[in-house]
Amino acid sequence: MAEILAVLRSLMASHSPPLDALIVPSEDYHQSEYVSDRDKRREFVSGFTGSAGLALVTKTEARLWTDGRYFLQAMQQLSDDWQLMRMGEDPPVDAWMSDNLPEEAAIGVDPWCVSVDTAQKWERAFEKKQQKLVQTSSNLVDEVWKNRPPAEINPVIVHPLEFAGRSVAEKLKDLREKLPKEKARGLIITALDEVAWLYNIRGSDVSYCPVVHAFAIVTLNSAFFYVDKRKVSSKVSCSLQENGIEVREYGEVSSDVALLASNQLDKHTGLRSGRNGVCENDKCEAEENSNDLTLVDPASCCYALFSKLDAKKVLLQQSPLALAKALKNPVELDGLKNAHIRDGAAVVQYLVWLDKQMQEIYGASGYFLEGKGSGKKRSDDVKLTEVTVSDKLEGFRASKEHFRGLSFPTISSVGPNAAIIHYEPEAETCAELDPDSIYLFDSGAQYLDGTTDITRTVHFGKPSAHEKTCYTSVLKGHMALGNARFPNGTNGPALDILARIPLWKYGLDYRHGTGHGVGSYLYVHEGPHTISFRQQPRNVPLQVSMTVTDEPGYYEDGSFGIRLENVLVIKEADTEFNFGDKEYLSFEHITWAPYQIKLIDFSLLTPEEVEWLNTYHSKCLEILSPYMDKNEQDWLKKATEPVSA
Amino acid sequence: MAEILAVLRSLMASHSPPLDALIVPSEDYHQSEYVSDRDKRREFVSGFTGSAGLALVTKTEARLWTDGRYFLQAMQQLSDDWQLMRMGEDPPVDAWMSDNLPEEAAIGVDPWCVSVDTAQKWERAFEKKQQKLVQTSSNLVDEVWKNRPPAEINPVIVHPLEFAGRSVAEKLKDLREKLPKEKARGLIITALDEVAWLYNIRGSDVSYCPVVHAFAIVTLNSAFFYVDKRKVSSKVSCSLQENGIEVREYGEVSSDVALLASNQLDKHTGLRSGRNGVCENDKCEAEENSNDLTLVDPASCCYALFSKLDAKKVLLQQSPLALAKALKNPVELDGLKNAHIRDGAAVVQYLVWLDKQMQEIYGASGYFLEGKGSGKKRSDDVKLTEVTVSDKLEGFRASKEHFRGLSFPTISSVGPNAAIIHYEPEAETCAELDPDSIYLFDSGAQYLDGTTDITRTVHFGKPSAHEKTCYTSVLKGHMALGNARFPNGTNGPALDILARIPLWKYGLDYRHGTGHGVGSYLYVHEGPHTISFRQQPRNVPLQVSMTVTDEPGYYEDGSFGIRLENVLVIKEADTEFNFGDKEYLSFEHITWAPYQIKLIDFSLLTPEEVEWLNTYHSKCLEILSPYMDKNEQDWLKKATEPVSA
Repeated sequence: MAEILAVLRSLMASHSPPLDALIVPSEDYHQSEYVSDRDKRREFVSGFTGSAGLALVTKTEARLWTDGRYFLQAMQQLSDDWQLMRMGEDPPVDAWMSDNLPEEAAIGVDPWCVSVDTAQKWERAFEKKQQKLVQTSSNLVDEVWKNRPPAEINPVIVHPLEFAGRSVAEKLKDLREKLPKEKARGLIITALDEVAWLYNIRGSDVSYCPVVHAFAIVTLNSAFFYVDKRKVSSKVSCSLQENGIEVREYGEVSSDVALLASNQLDKHTGLRSGRNGVCENDKCEAEENSNDLTLVDPASCCYALFSKLDAKKVLLQQSPLALAKALKNPVELDGLKNAHIRDGAAVVQYLVWLDKQMQEIYGASGYFLEGKGSGKKRSDDVKLTEVTVSDKLEGFRASKEHFRGLSFPTISSVGPNAAIIHYEPEAETCAELDPDSIYLFDSGAQYLDGTTDITRTVHFGKPSAHEKTCYTSVLKGHMALGNARFPNGTNGPALDILARIPLWKYGLDYRHGTGHGVGSYLYVHEGPHTISFRQQPRNVPLQVSMTVTDEPGYYEDGSFGIRLENVLVIKEADTEFNFGDKEYLSFEHITWAPYQIKLIDFSLLTPEEVEWLNTYHSKCLEILSPYMDKNEQDWLKKATEPVSA
Repeated sequence: MAEILAVLRSLMASHSPPLDALIVPSEDYHQSEYVSDRDKRREFVSGFTGSAGLALVTKTEARLWTDGRYFLQAMQQLSDDWQLMRMGEDPPVDAWMSDNLPEEAAIGVDPWCVSVDTAQKWERAFEKKQQKLVQTSSNLVDEVWKNRPPAEINPVIVHPLEFAGRSVAEKLKDLREKLPKEKARGLIITALDEVAWLYNIRGSDVSYCPVVHAFAIVTLNSAFFYVDKRKVSSKVSCSLQENGIEVREYGEVSSDVALLASNQLDKHTGLRSGRNGVCENDKCEAEENSNDLTLVDPASCCYALFSKLDAKKVLLQQSPLALAKALKNPVELDGLKNAHIRDGAAVVQYLVWLDKQMQEIYGASGYFLEGKGSGKKRSDDVKLTEVTVSDKLEGFRASKEHFRGLSFPTISSVGPNAAIIHYEPEAETCAELDPDSIYLFDSGAQYLDGTTDITRTVHFGKPSAHEKTCYTSVLKGHMALGNARFPNGTNGPALDILARIPLWKYGLDYRHGTGHGVGSYLYVHEGPHTISFRQQPRNVPLQVSMTVTDEPGYYEDGSFGIRLENVLVIKEADTEFNFGDKEYLSFEHITWAPYQIKLIDFSLLTPEEVEWLNTYHSKCLEILSPYMDKNEQDWLKKATEPVSA
């Protein structure tokens, strides 16, 4: 690490202009949350492997900012050369740079790896001391990174209508109807999942995310797809062309954006109007003249592309595709529900298997019994680790129809590791399963018909009273949110507190948001809505047919962690009244797997909560049984037996 | 009304430049919520008497914007010449003006009656069509208003230290320590309650608000008080001078702000440093040179004064006095608690009296019995009206120590009138009490030691099952908020949902916020914190020693209304744990008056809620009994008898 920093600092010194500091963001050219290995520049520089964070290298210091999910992990991974900056506790990076870097400092960043929003925020912070954000002409980290993985050539796949539910032509038509309303004639699409969703294509360029490294530009007349052409078979190419989409080289996006800026893009393409989904009448021409803005989403568009546009002709606002993608169509909703049933069956099969193993290998009392068990380990030769069991879980999922891989690295964590919110076990160093400790697993998969995300926390021995209080409080928050009814127009962040109140009662809390959207065979974390206490600049109200997770938790450093997570779908609520004619909304749980009765302190539940639990459990049994063998069915029947308060 | 509009339109036409529209805000020169009669220009023009709203007169139209509390009232009061614009449903005023007034329109406003924030927001909206905000040189409404009430000369009173708890010298010292941290050398204080709080003075220039029409300017060396000097006795003048405060004429603030802008103000005053509470050392001089900003609160400072400053030398941010005033000192907290006990006693005495009257005059079954009663009215000569009973309530309060008047117009409302959230009964037109209808009263008083605000809803006959469900849901929300524990740093708006969830369950809601700060013998509505679903640009977290109301409601147009309101004080919570070392906070109820058991559907309460109710009631009995006679004590004992779920 020290060596990397030394070389980086020499590159900073020889840069023109010389740099006082270099910012190394986590993001790739598309501001993705999960990036391919060759784009893990921040990880390469700092050694910190979490999915979110920002590294700053100055002449004498190296600091890493990350959020509450990763404080423990970052502490463990960062070398002494690095200082951890805790988001929400320490000064934010822009304020820190402004306050601590010298007057007129030159602060470098690769403009492809930073969003317009972020770059502009930094520039505003820099004004106070006449500091300057320097766009480096190449990526300095790439120059240091000798063994940087090469780009992979993974094929682009067409996502069939039976799963997508809406054709490319329809999606393009919807989009082209929206653009004139914003006085825009074109949209630059930079978020990988938006490109994939709009063009109904999928790929495998990023682990866990079935997306293709690609940009898109859509105007009223044309549609472009910028991608390494080696990834596009002639069959896929034809399919795209049928929808009026021209395939161009990935690198051409840069010059095409410049052409778009000067209103020359359509003239430089072989495509002309008159194709499927493309505006055909005279009105179109007229609209194009009065609408001369280019719509750019400042949260996902990189500063490099934005800099090629005339700022006066740019409409900086959320991409219309963000909301369009979040509102699942009926086919996607059916797919998601089916995928979650298969996924729930896999999770229960895993629990049945794990329960047996824990009793056989570790002499645990098991999933159902409260006692300590024999506590005798069968043999030192056999053991279960966080990684071996999570591989088993993947196996159960892989046996299911439409399985295409995991949707994120499985969090499989025993005892103290469960307190590391985004813990990722590694085969060499991970912990062994322990009948006396809580075990938390947060996992999900990509199926052709939907993406899943579920967390359960279990104990195969005797949980302490404190663990039960904490589990029950988390469960109460999970239920309070999941059972909420709320008027149309309510923003997700307003609901966040419902999941925390039962924890706050004891002075407990968790350092992460409570829910995120989930994609349709796309990203497991999807916007634009969210349920989080954090400031939400985008503020999209929750709407019917959105997906959102419900995942409160509690984490006791060095001891244990608890999280319970279901995916919910927003639907109309069947309320007795409809005050203000707003229509009221509620959630439908689409995740199916039991909560562990043994971990619940029933004296803390209201009769209403007990009733909900019993109803949910009876549905679990009914829905999952067809996917199980007799032994598994018996286990599930026992796990979902009604409880009286 | 039509005549007023005609004259106003002719003045608009002859104005230079001619005006396409005139904005008539509700606010006075200090952006006050409650204004003196001579400042009720919007009411004079439109006929709408609510406390909040904005009138817009164009060449052909007249529109009035107001919020959900006043929709019903405005509908009743506006003539056909006016169109009601519902905030939250119709376009906001800035968007409406931008969209509907012509290109390059000239839109006039008296710059003394609009805040910097609001004027700048309008100007931004006007940019799109090159419209212009014109500062009228005089107030056009005043020119039309023949019988405008004259200015009253009410004495300025010194608010003694035994109630204020902190001396003027200490408050000035605190403020002067804050200014250099913001690089400011002066603060213009325009909010009437901030002037009153800082200088420990009170007055009676505005009904219900013990404030003086005055401005203040505080620099590191000087302090000024701009007021009609006829209001200041020589004794009060001496007291102010002892604290280094120079009394100047109200109108001089304009030229003094201009002097402040050119750094000339201190040189033009007879005052020099070296007095009580004034910075005395050399450091002060040095600080003054490097700190050359003037701090102006854009929410309360009028555009007229702001326009006299050099915009580059202005620091637009919340006045530091807003938070200082909200954090009550121990003397103020004691005073508030005592004032609320006396006030609660008055409320209970009123209920005892009213219960007896309702039975005697109307044959009602009364406060305690569920039945319909005889239903026979004693005589047509005797009747109770919303106004006569609220006068009686005022009488009970007036008998209490330190009483100085009401803190806002009493809302005393029967049946359908209770659905008008800020209903203000008038003697000639108000409704008669009705044993078959809900009766809601929302009232408060100014006592030398504190301001009070309480709402109770009662029924003296047989409430319907629906009314009970609604009352119980409101009560559940009221308890959920009042019993919440939350980490330090939590903003009030995040808590708002707790009071709504029980209502949302049925598709019910209310169109107002849930809580506001309450002053210490000052405004009954006080910032900067609030508990409201509305966007809170100022975002001040709830902090220990703040006051806040807890007042959810439900209103069924044309039928009935329910609201329950207590004042809470924020204190440290005694939680078992302290996750994140944030310290957890909770509320202490300081309002004492029973909830009506008859209106509660106990099947909807949890055991925890029943327990809270019993505890609160037993405290009511204990705390209020010493202030009552035997008969009242017996009634209260019955009203607070423990209930088993």
